Amino acid sequence: MKAKVHVTLKSGVLDPQGKAVGHALASLGFDGVGDVRQGKYIEIDLNDTDAGTARARVEDMCQKLLANTVIENYHVDIEG
Amino acid sequence: MKAKVHVTLKSGVLDPQGKAVGHALASLGFDGVGDVRQGKYIEIDLNDTDAGTARARVEDMCQKLLANTVIENYHVDIEG
Repeated sequence: MKAKVHVTLKSGVLDPQGKAVGHALASLGFDGVGDVRQGKYIEIDLNDTDAGTARARVEDMCQKLLANTVIENYHVDIEG
Repeated sequence: MKAKVHVTLKSGVLDPQGKAVGHALASLGFDGVGDVRQGKYIEIDLNDTDAGTARARVEDMCQKLLANTVIENYHVDIEG
């Protein structure tokens, strides 16, 4: 099965990368663009056959490697 | 309304960042992990009130700035 993980900065944490994208969009002439936030999107192929086990393992991966839980939130979707 | 954009490498394009994550997971003891692919996830606040207009604008943003369409695919979701 496949895990789809979103890692996003917690609200309140400054996002200079998102700010840069927002400014670039404005300079390209896109108006009416408000806040821009950039995060990571990770797809992981897993051998697990049970969705619950897979979710628990991927949440463990997020805690240990994929996300910095001091400043980032993560969201796990399991498919397949 | 809010646009949620996923930018992912096209299949066949090497993903060294994803490979590094895969190796790091293996070295942390997570077995049964296959291919790992890493992409970008961008949230954009928009002033638009019409979902169709918003989608067209965000797809234009992807073409011009957010994605390198030679090697990357993008997917736009409009909410709100």
